[in-house]
Amino acid sequence: MKHVKTFIITVILSITLSGFITAQESETEWVPELTEGWTPVDDSVQTFSPGEAPSDAIHLFDGTDLSAWTSTNDDRRDAGWAIDDGAVTVVPGSGNIQTRRRFGDVQLHIEWKTPEMIDGDGQGRGNSGVFLQGIYEVQILDSWQNSTYSNGQAGSIYKQKAPDVNASKAPGEWQSFDIIFEAPRFDDDGSLIKPAYMTVHHNGVLIHHRYELDGPTKYIGLPEYTPHAEKLPIMLQDHSDKISFRNIWVREL
Amino acid sequence: MKHVKTFIITVILSITLSGFITAQESETEWVPELTEGWTPVDDSVQTFSPGEAPSDAIHLFDGTDLSAWTSTNDDRRDAGWAIDDGAVTVVPGSGNIQTRRRFGDVQLHIEWKTPEMIDGDGQGRGNSGVFLQGIYEVQILDSWQNSTYSNGQAGSIYKQKAPDVNASKAPGEWQSFDIIFEAPRFDDDGSLIKPAYMTVHHNGVLIHHRYELDGPTKYIGLPEYTPHAEKLPIMLQDHSDKISFRNIWVREL
Amino acid sequence: MKHVKTFIITVILSITLSGFITAQESETEWVPELTEGWTPVDDSVQTFSPGEAPSDAIHLFDGTDLSAWTSTNDDRRDAGWAIDDGAVTVVPGSGNIQTRRRFGDVQLHIEWKTPEMIDGDGQGRGNSGVFLQGIYEVQILDSWQNSTYSNGQAGSIYKQKAPDVNASKAPGEWQSFDIIFEAPRFDDDGSLIKPAYMTVHHNGVLIHHRYELDGPTKYIGLPEYTPHAEKLPIMLQDHSDKISFRNIWVREL
Amino acid sequence: MKHVKTFIITVILSITLSGFITAQESETEWVPELTEGWTPVDDSVQTFSPGEAPSDAIHLFDGTDLSAWTSTNDDRRDAGWAIDDGAVTVVPGSGNIQTRRRFGDVQLHIEWKTPEMIDGDGQGRGNSGVFLQGIYEVQILDSWQNSTYSNGQAGSIYKQKAPDVNASKAPGEWQSFDIIFEAPRFDDDGSLIKPAYMTVHHNGVLIHHRYELDGPTKYIGLPEYTPHAEKLPIMLQDHSDKISFRNIWVREL
Repeated sequence: MKHVKTFIITVILSITLSGFITAQESETEWVPELTEGWTPVDDSVQTFSPGEAPSDAIHLFDGTDLSAWTSTNDDRRDAGWAIDDGAVTVVPGSGNIQTRRRFGDVQLHIEWKTPEMIDGDGQGRGNSGVFLQGIYEVQILDSWQNSTYSNGQAGSIYKQKAPDVNASKAPGEWQSFDIIFEAPRFDDDGSLIKPAYMTVHHNGVLIHHRYELDGPTKYIGLPEYTPHAEKLPIMLQDHSDKISFRNIWVREL
Repeated sequence: MKHVKTFIITVILSITLSGFITAQESETEWVPELTEGWTPVDDSVQTFSPGEAPSDAIHLFDGTDLSAWTSTNDDRRDAGWAIDDGAVTVVPGSGNIQTRRRFGDVQLHIEWKTPEMIDGDGQGRGNSGVFLQGIYEVQILDSWQNSTYSNGQAGSIYKQKAPDVNASKAPGEWQSFDIIFEAPRFDDDGSLIKPAYMTVHHNGVLIHHRYELDGPTKYIGLPEYTPHAEKLPIMLQDHSDKISFRNIWVREL
Repeated sequence: MKHVKTFIITVILSITLSGFITAQESETEWVPELTEGWTPVDDSVQTFSPGEAPSDAIHLFDGTDLSAWTSTNDDRRDAGWAIDDGAVTVVPGSGNIQTRRRFGDVQLHIEWKTPEMIDGDGQGRGNSGVFLQGIYEVQILDSWQNSTYSNGQAGSIYKQKAPDVNASKAPGEWQSFDIIFEAPRFDDDGSLIKPAYMTVHHNGVLIHHRYELDGPTKYIGLPEYTPHAEKLPIMLQDHSDKISFRNIWVREL
Repeated sequence: MKHVKTFIITVILSITLSGFITAQESETEWVPELTEGWTPVDDSVQTFSPGEAPSDAIHLFDGTDLSAWTSTNDDRRDAGWAIDDGAVTVVPGSGNIQTRRRFGDVQLHIEWKTPEMIDGDGQGRGNSGVFLQGIYEVQILDSWQNSTYSNGQAGSIYKQKAPDVNASKAPGEWQSFDIIFEAPRFDDDGSLIKPAYMTVHHNGVLIHHRYELDGPTKYIGLPEYTPHAEKLPIMLQDHSDKISFRNIWVREL
């Protein structure tokens, strides 16, 4: 990780402003330097190629092991999903898995594919989900020529907002979500200071732009915020379908 | 109406800045004048006393006549409510009334009272409503020791948000709403650019602070925006109870 | 303080929905009860008359004593301003004063008047200020036929935003500010979660609607947030002019 | 373009709810179907590979010709920049170029590289810019180990906000911007309804998240909105450096 070089800038100024300003909507004279900001910006982020992660990211799954994850039912148990050929696949019935590490605001990259062999329809076809902080879901579904309620199709913020477009690829093809998640903030007394927001690209196509969530994902009824910790694990859902994942990384914002 | 005096300000500046600035977070020198704004502000608003309106307001009802209003059922018909002693009172069965003039963003002041003699309970006691643009309701109800669902009590943005506190006075006492309403804006294609917002004081007590509405008031189901004109009449509801109103004025924002 | 009566509502439902729904944009049947909210609302706020405060307010100055205030220079010293006839007046040179109590989000009511005898002009005439959290100023000035930069006139968020209109009364007349202040929030690492916002009525006329502040008030240069405590005192400024104040109260939001 | 298949959903409901509900915070019974939305989502967006564009995008430069562009100085003149090997490069002195087509809200993808041979420093090294609507700039600069003011480095919203991190690649390497731009909206009277917002990824790394712009880019002084058309051309800057561009596409939002 490289850091900003300390820099010395020597500016010799000798400005003489003089004149009569007849003001209605007028001011002293501005110079370009006045709107320059010099707070150093972290330049630790190195380039990355497809399949890799930025240098300041935490790789949650790089194709080799699930050591960053546990079972959600019992966080002392390892995640019981299957690794094969650089991908991890849901083992139906083994339960949801979640990161050992807890996160607040993040940029999350995740790649996934639904089974090439179509089985079932609607919500019963290629169903899983990415749950930010374990409770705010971006839906995974095989939405390739598969009808269901639109706020439940692939890329939806489940039961809150449909994606702006359906950017789904065919079953069996790798797809990606790039998610910017702003975690909600609560006051000491439990009241909401700032709701959660999500921006999502599905296969590079914008489907939500800083959408304000009404609360955690709810299957029945209306979402409503209840206070929770600032950082919580990211969860992936076992919805009984054999969804595969690869190249999962996250940058803390 | 008085306007800003043209003013001539003669500023003679003779500033000499010189020096070495070793910058990390540094700039050319600022002077106080650079952050002064001189765009003239409209100073036409004259003082007012209780019961009066600011000089730039439109008085919708000053105690004498209902000429600013029509029946909602038929806008060629006059409003059929009863005027007595400086107040106007709902004539049950005569229907809702609305302003002849149409409004977008406004500051609205309105005073109202529910019947001193209590009759009925819950939503059946002292019920009426102020509908901004005819469709965004602030609820009027006798909520003095009267239980109902909280997003339906006095001051609620009906079925969207309960007031932050219950600031109701007793039946038969005059109460006030001071409402700041930002009308929603729609693009040419009908999509929502900006939702509606309301700030409301009930009897001088803040009960909503720039709350973002989910759409027009809906009795059954969830609200949803549909595009409409930029300006629409303000409506008062005949809900079969004899609610009285006085001193209604509005400032266009 | 009175609390919401516990209420028992007995609802006997016997709904039979049956039918074929051919959906494109359709759903199961909604009933009105589904959008009723029943979370109790605090109804402790009692009515108030002009010159009084709501029952849930903290009276910072009711005309009799300055016990709620200290000198800003030394918070162990009492506020050295002069009380006379129900009002408190700046003693030029005695310094700013601030509340003993600290506040975050508030609704603040304050009445003030500038000297009837005009002396000076521009910023030199009837100058003081109300500083929320000691650093976010709403400007007090005699702006009755008195030219100055507009983001420095009465009611301005000083050097950030001019009031929408000039609602000033003449010197010697009592004026009021009703301010809704949302305090900024900072994360544990000092980054800004939520900026400060202000809504201000000047003499009952809206002059700012939930304006987002760029940072604390700054006389020279551009405002910028730096993290601070969640609650801080309210300050009144000694700017060498004999401004009077009365009926100051605050509701914690 | 393929459209959502019409779908028939047959729901047979036979719900009998009956019981006594003792309510404080209670409601009629919710069922999952009530929060399903069925508004069809446009599913015309087909998959794309790196170097290609989504099926609903407008390709502004695909490596072959500049027919989508004109000179900014004279929009009847063709863009005078040089095409070579699938890229287009600034011809210093030929002036800025802009799209023939005008845009409002967009998702914009653009790839660029600065000259491999370093020449100059600070703002004098690899300088250009992408101007949304011709006036809202995302800065292009060789910011690889090159110091300048941070709100002027690569990826900055020029003189308004520095990027959150410096995600620059080395000179001579291809870099990308993925920009979500929400155009400002103005009322008929010229007042601002909604400011401009930008979300930017630089080389896949988030550097701005729906940042609210203070106005058009300004070299000297503070930005300020002035009303303009809803749609305007995108502009690329000739800043005398030989910056190259490729694979430029835009999706209208």
